[in-house]
Amino acid sequence: MADINAIAKQFTDFYYQTFDTNRAGLQNLYRESSMLTWEGAPIQSAAAITEKLTSLPFEKVQHKVTTLDAQPSNPAVASILVIVTGLLVVDDSPSPLQFSQAFQLIPEGSSYYVLNDIFRLNYG
Amino acid sequence: MADINAIAKQFTDFYYQTFDTNRAGLQNLYRESSMLTWEGAPIQSAAAITEKLTSLPFEKVQHKVTTLDAQPSNPAVASILVIVTGLLVVDDSPSPLQFSQAFQLIPEGSSYYVLNDIFRLNYG
Repeated sequence: MADINAIAKQFTDFYYQTFDTNRAGLQNLYRESSMLTWEGAPIQSAAAITEKLTSLPFEKVQHKVTTLDAQPSNPAVASILVIVTGLLVVDDSPSPLQFSQAFQLIPEGSSYYVLNDIFRLNYG
Repeated sequence: MADINAIAKQFTDFYYQTFDTNRAGLQNLYRESSMLTWEGAPIQSAAAITEKLTSLPFEKVQHKVTTLDAQPSNPAVASILVIVTGLLVVDDSPSPLQFSQAFQLIPEGSSYYVLNDIFRLNYG
């Protein structure tokens, strides 16, 4: 599964770099059918997801990926399930927050879009 | 998505109760094509997954689910992506471990099997 892991790494590098520097730029990764569940709140469509992500109440944010796992998610299509755990540093806080995030990536042309996105902070 | 959340709750209640009382009983939830990534190690097939789960080196284990999220994972099939975060109490340790786990459930007859399973402990 070397390819899948490489794609997952490339995707998450791009996703978190974009999230941390230009959140509005994430819109291109979602489609009308895309779903985000953010801390339990369900949101659908690229426009609504982008509105949610850009309105999150922090000025500065940095994702640090701790673990990254990927599996093929459909025998008929080259879609990929990606699971991330990591740390979120918000507004230079000295206490990073743990998070878990799941994506399902669907192939489209030579790239992928995000059909499923589930984000949770993990409180100890 | 009430139905999906109810199915996810029913599945995870059954899964963790079986894990905590009779790990070998989990084999029925997996198929030949099923994948488990356990702490980064990829394992495939119901038999290999069951062998891994039953050989984990703890005598007594208890899962406590903290968050549970579910989304439909395929427009063409009633499959479900389930993401769990929670606490794992191993051998009555006073310090529970945080974990994240992702499942993709695929409909089969009137029930579901697990195609994807990704488990990670979350270290702070």
